[in-house]
Amino acid sequence: MVETCDIEMEGHLIDSLTLTKALDKIMSMGGEFEIKKFQVGKKKHDTSYVMIAISGDDADHLGRILLALHPLGARVIEVEDVHLEIAPKDRVVPRGFYSTTNHITSVRYRGAWLEVEDIQMDCLIIIKDGRAVCVPIGQIEKGDAVVVGTGGVRVTPPQRPRERTFFEFMSNEVSSERPSGEIIKQLAGEILATKKVGGKIAVVGGPGIIHTGAGDALAGLIRDGYIDVLLAGNALAVHDIERQFFGTSLGMDPHGHLTSAGHRNHIYAISEVISSGSIRRAVEDGKLKGGIMYEAVKRDIPYVLAGSIRDDGPLPDVVTDTVLAQKAMFEALRGVDMVIMMATMLHSIATGNLLPSRVKTICVDINPSTVTKLMDRGSAQAIGLVTDIGIFLPALAEEVKMQKEAS
Amino acid sequence: MVETCDIEMEGHLIDSLTLTKALDKIMSMGGEFEIKKFQVGKKKHDTSYVMIAISGDDADHLGRILLALHPLGARVIEVEDVHLEIAPKDRVVPRGFYSTTNHITSVRYRGAWLEVEDIQMDCLIIIKDGRAVCVPIGQIEKGDAVVVGTGGVRVTPPQRPRERTFFEFMSNEVSSERPSGEIIKQLAGEILATKKVGGKIAVVGGPGIIHTGAGDALAGLIRDGYIDVLLAGNALAVHDIERQFFGTSLGMDPHGHLTSAGHRNHIYAISEVISSGSIRRAVEDGKLKGGIMYEAVKRDIPYVLAGSIRDDGPLPDVVTDTVLAQKAMFEALRGVDMVIMMATMLHSIATGNLLPSRVKTICVDINPSTVTKLMDRGSAQAIGLVTDIGIFLPALAEEVKMQKEAS
Amino acid sequence: MVETCDIEMEGHLIDSLTLTKALDKIMSMGGEFEIKKFQVGKKKHDTSYVMIAISGDDADHLGRILLALHPLGARVIEVEDVHLEIAPKDRVVPRGFYSTTNHITSVRYRGAWLEVEDIQMDCLIIIKDGRAVCVPIGQIEKGDAVVVGTGGVRVTPPQRPRERTFFEFMSNEVSSERPSGEIIKQLAGEILATKKVGGKIAVVGGPGIIHTGAGDALAGLIRDGYIDVLLAGNALAVHDIERQFFGTSLGMDPHGHLTSAGHRNHIYAISEVISSGSIRRAVEDGKLKGGIMYEAVKRDIPYVLAGSIRDDGPLPDVVTDTVLAQKAMFEALRGVDMVIMMATMLHSIATGNLLPSRVKTICVDINPSTVTKLMDRGSAQAIGLVTDIGIFLPALAEEVKMQKEAS
Amino acid sequence: MVETCDIEMEGHLIDSLTLTKALDKIMSMGGEFEIKKFQVGKKKHDTSYVMIAISGDDADHLGRILLALHPLGARVIEVEDVHLEIAPKDRVVPRGFYSTTNHITSVRYRGAWLEVEDIQMDCLIIIKDGRAVCVPIGQIEKGDAVVVGTGGVRVTPPQRPRERTFFEFMSNEVSSERPSGEIIKQLAGEILATKKVGGKIAVVGGPGIIHTGAGDALAGLIRDGYIDVLLAGNALAVHDIERQFFGTSLGMDPHGHLTSAGHRNHIYAISEVISSGSIRRAVEDGKLKGGIMYEAVKRDIPYVLAGSIRDDGPLPDVVTDTVLAQKAMFEALRGVDMVIMMATMLHSIATGNLLPSRVKTICVDINPSTVTKLMDRGSAQAIGLVTDIGIFLPALAEEVKMQKEAS
Repeated sequence: MVETCDIEMEGHLIDSLTLTKALDKIMSMGGEFEIKKFQVGKKKHDTSYVMIAISGDDADHLGRILLALHPLGARVIEVEDVHLEIAPKDRVVPRGFYSTTNHITSVRYRGAWLEVEDIQMDCLIIIKDGRAVCVPIGQIEKGDAVVVGTGGVRVTPPQRPRERTFFEFMSNEVSSERPSGEIIKQLAGEILATKKVGGKIAVVGGPGIIHTGAGDALAGLIRDGYIDVLLAGNALAVHDIERQFFGTSLGMDPHGHLTSAGHRNHIYAISEVISSGSIRRAVEDGKLKGGIMYEAVKRDIPYVLAGSIRDDGPLPDVVTDTVLAQKAMFEALRGVDMVIMMATMLHSIATGNLLPSRVKTICVDINPSTVTKLMDRGSAQAIGLVTDIGIFLPALAEEVKMQKEAS
Repeated sequence: MVETCDIEMEGHLIDSLTLTKALDKIMSMGGEFEIKKFQVGKKKHDTSYVMIAISGDDADHLGRILLALHPLGARVIEVEDVHLEIAPKDRVVPRGFYSTTNHITSVRYRGAWLEVEDIQMDCLIIIKDGRAVCVPIGQIEKGDAVVVGTGGVRVTPPQRPRERTFFEFMSNEVSSERPSGEIIKQLAGEILATKKVGGKIAVVGGPGIIHTGAGDALAGLIRDGYIDVLLAGNALAVHDIERQFFGTSLGMDPHGHLTSAGHRNHIYAISEVISSGSIRRAVEDGKLKGGIMYEAVKRDIPYVLAGSIRDDGPLPDVVTDTVLAQKAMFEALRGVDMVIMMATMLHSIATGNLLPSRVKTICVDINPSTVTKLMDRGSAQAIGLVTDIGIFLPALAEEVKMQKEAS
Repeated sequence: MVETCDIEMEGHLIDSLTLTKALDKIMSMGGEFEIKKFQVGKKKHDTSYVMIAISGDDADHLGRILLALHPLGARVIEVEDVHLEIAPKDRVVPRGFYSTTNHITSVRYRGAWLEVEDIQMDCLIIIKDGRAVCVPIGQIEKGDAVVVGTGGVRVTPPQRPRERTFFEFMSNEVSSERPSGEIIKQLAGEILATKKVGGKIAVVGGPGIIHTGAGDALAGLIRDGYIDVLLAGNALAVHDIERQFFGTSLGMDPHGHLTSAGHRNHIYAISEVISSGSIRRAVEDGKLKGGIMYEAVKRDIPYVLAGSIRDDGPLPDVVTDTVLAQKAMFEALRGVDMVIMMATMLHSIATGNLLPSRVKTICVDINPSTVTKLMDRGSAQAIGLVTDIGIFLPALAEEVKMQKEAS
Repeated sequence: MVETCDIEMEGHLIDSLTLTKALDKIMSMGGEFEIKKFQVGKKKHDTSYVMIAISGDDADHLGRILLALHPLGARVIEVEDVHLEIAPKDRVVPRGFYSTTNHITSVRYRGAWLEVEDIQMDCLIIIKDGRAVCVPIGQIEKGDAVVVGTGGVRVTPPQRPRERTFFEFMSNEVSSERPSGEIIKQLAGEILATKKVGGKIAVVGGPGIIHTGAGDALAGLIRDGYIDVLLAGNALAVHDIERQFFGTSLGMDPHGHLTSAGHRNHIYAISEVISSGSIRRAVEDGKLKGGIMYEAVKRDIPYVLAGSIRDDGPLPDVVTDTVLAQKAMFEALRGVDMVIMMATMLHSIATGNLLPSRVKTICVDINPSTVTKLMDRGSAQAIGLVTDIGIFLPALAEEVKMQKEAS
């Protein structure tokens, strides 16, 4: 028997695509709709409001439609408290649990709206000590009060900005045929603007940064205070350190010639750091005198080197347990405003999983599939640049310096 | 001084994204808007209507905004006739000419609405003998009455279909990680459905079809009557014929082994056809006894082999003049309902340029950039499949046969 | 002062490219050479022998050239014992240590030649209890006797096979334009031939296998006994199990439609396995009734699920510590004759690092860069297929079945 | 019955891979060999000589093996004159004709060796007025004396250079992970070195050069006299001219913003040039005042704009007949020493077809498949750079200027 229910949405519903997506969803899922009220934001800064009656073939069908509309900010009109169920064991979740988006989320608990803390995608919400917290399944503990269903949960998807910004400009384009020099200028402007208001910028980087000769540029950006957090793997750090110790990365010298050392310098660089005890100690010992990791230590910015099954060594600083590494990355990313991902698919997607959608995210890679996969995995806020990091990053660092001096 | 003007739009404005794009455009270009009337289509099949007052900084700014809104179907409310100017020379166009989209377009001429014939993107509209015709710049003749400005021109962009179809389903997804077997089933279904209602299907193919071993599958689809038009280049035809004559393509035998013949069989195949006079004659002579071109001749379907600067030979059937080849392709595509593009970037984009947006378009290539470029160039209706044509096409032909038998 | 030294090499020096690479190396590094003896294998099965006098600008230059020639099988003529040095601490290696290739390697110790056990690339050799063992830096212990320099070490690079095989055939080609159907036939033949002689086959797979609809085909190959080892990550296992429990993978149903479940089914699948305790228990509980992991448990083949920082959950079976995961992978790969890598860059490269060059290695991916990177990282024996796993794997499974029945 | 025949080869047989490829070919084709004489070039600059007895299963098998060895420089020992047959019709070739490589080739005619003029791959050789000339099949005329078989034809494949050069350095590497900045330095050095000895440099370019903002850099290189020939299509020229006239390319302004002009500026730029009569006239009229085409006209370097079926317009300068365009490209490339191909697959492969293997060839594209295809099609001498032309080309132009000033 047909079941009907009223939902409401508000915000920049039309130009942020929210209403479009909602009607699309209803039709795709075979539902019917009737728009009961529609107050359109008449001018640029006005928000819109819509009330829609949605019908499904039966209660179950309707439920599935409502579930699908929920991440778009739709909410059933009768406001109710969230429903909670108790986790029966550690890491075992109640059936029907609410699965989070990466957008700002609030829950109604005992009549009041609580904003969910630590929001990240594909996790759960628990209520603890009167606070609503987003936790991954791996951190659910027996007895936790877990939100189930969508009742009493409200999502606020990102709104299209009213002014033209770099991020808005880029996401309007899909082609790789864009004026690269101009993009570098705009990105440099964004970096300076973010730092000017005290924002925090994280870099997620792969070893390609070193191989393509862009290591010095990144080291310079760290030294000059533009980077607040560094997320990488064993490989970036080892290549960077090998470069400092022996002038090679994977046995290739800065002119791109393979030396006879092959992988030996790589392994020996690891051994030297192990012998010091850690990267920081290698800096303190006077062994390590420059490069990305050196600057990170000198500026005392937090870095996480997350382990992977491809690692040689690894360095003593590497967090080899992937669950602990995820936690460390999440902590390091707290409060970050902008993330620049470069030349790494694994670390970029892993970081994307941990970021709220409000964080400005740029992913730079020569391989377009890195960007495509990042967005497929849910980091829809990310913009992609398909370019050669070896020329791009030095040009960006230079541009930041020039704009800074000009300002 | 601020200039304001009312425009109106109608259709499935919200879920077809039209209104979203219009507001986006206005804001991106620095304009202001006020929504004066908004009648929302309350139910699935109802259309919506909106009237928007748009303001620009001055008449020129407003003009540029209106120009940008035009392809979305926006029209200024006071209906007027189109403005015409005379082309001063062959292939020289009046300043301010109206540049076409690939959507259904009408012009108001002497108080009546004429649908523009032969619509294709990036061309001009002329009024001739009381008819409105879309022509490329290369066909403009001195004295032609050319439409200038957007006044009196009405565009109807494609509307989101009310029911779920293969094409709608696919365009919701961007990932290459899709169930390929299922996609083959659905595409086979679309082919059969199109043929059932008497629709016409064109294939645009590159030589990769032969190299990857999918030639027999395409020949079979032609033989069985599923393909009505074949657009290709010299290379596909020569490889196909070389395969029939010598069992090789570019000297590679069907097991993928390079024979000692190298390119010689390729050249000799061309020579043999030249000696006959044409591909059709080679079939009539009994020289050519199978393959794609043989089946196309036997079924008497129109084919165009368009010349390119990469060609060997070429075959006598090749239209070596690219302007004439474009015309021949345009004529062959007239009335086509569905186009399947396979393993060719050049011919796919060239065909995309000639197609109205109402034609269902599928582009299949192992290289994602072919699809991306096709869409960048304006063929927004195209859906892309990133797959291996050598396995995909035989599986598709098999599936078509099975579904046909089952029906 | 110019230093000179005689080296010798033997094997199929010319057609296996060994001599070419050696002369190339000498010239690239600015050395001089004089070929003092050259006995050419006159017939197909004869080996060749060459003695070359190599000169460098000084002892150091000569040393660097000899080091670079070593992996090609070149050895200085005066035979000597290996030089050993003692590791001063755990994971700290003596300067000048010998860095391994992935080719068969022997060391001369106390006058006798010992074949190095557990050979893998970029590791060290230690002598322990009269045996020579290859160990990664992470397993070096204080006091280990580590081989330094190349003296007394002999490498035997792979020789070009005298007969035409699938692997030799493929590596002659670089293009993606190959007859895919034929390649499937030949690969199926290789699989059957390997199993016929009691060989072991490992599969390394990514979650794309499930998304593209090829999961059943892989499950079938395991059930029928063709696969002896399975290496994957959390994602493949969770998607496979989600598919069994809910018919979806990441919320996408087998028809490629996104259900409203989104990521929820994914997380719930993890929760259910955690609740059982392990995948094996979930099979024994009767919860898990089919799919890849089910068949692996049923046939009792070893599998390793290695953790990564992208993981949700993870499943209790996942080895979250990457160092332990590498070890588990290495153990599982012991004695394997053939490895098929599918749709995963991370796991493919990690596995490539652990394999001796004598293992037949095929890497199948839609993204050509996965194959390129694998070979860049040293797995030169790997051959790459750029194809769509969603059609390729079902066709391969079908072909294996047909060839088996025909035999 | 087994047939045997002696062949000989000379040159840097080992390090240029020639002997390796020859033995490989014999074994792949199922032949047997016995090396009868082998004089190894003992030192770096000595050439080697080998005499090999080759056996096939019968005369036909042996013939096929010899045919396959021919392009490697192998020749049967009994020296004989070339065999000639008469072309029966225009563009119809005698069976068994000799199919050319792109290497230096000589034919023995009336006892003397003639070097073949205008050598290019996949063509025929005719003897005319005592000269041997390479001609494509499309230019064969009735009555031409065409070389058949390999007797009396001698090929000299390129030898590995004895000194390390940029081109040799690059071709040793396959990875995209190379130090881009260093590569730019070396390529700039090659350009200056080529010009210093009076060499000629051609550029083959696609419209991506303009879209990515690298147009000014190319215009500068032409103005400064580094480029001697320009090969492109209609698109590059139109985008370049649109940029000069309207500041946009395809309606996109230099900041990457889409203006409302869309494709209209593009078409209008064409119209303006048509109205002048040609690009040169538009320069003389004072209409066209800068950019790539302007500099080409001003410096009076030959340019060929070859037509394609994707073209709008086209410009009056475009050679729309592809056969004539090929001829014009061939003429323009005569005597060129170095070719830089940028951001175009079609024109790069077409140019590659026309070049002798002795021409230094660099192909720069963001899409690795352009490079792969170029080499698959026979331009084995080409080296590929996978990078972003929008940053690469300006950096290259800057580097050329700096090195010039420093010299």
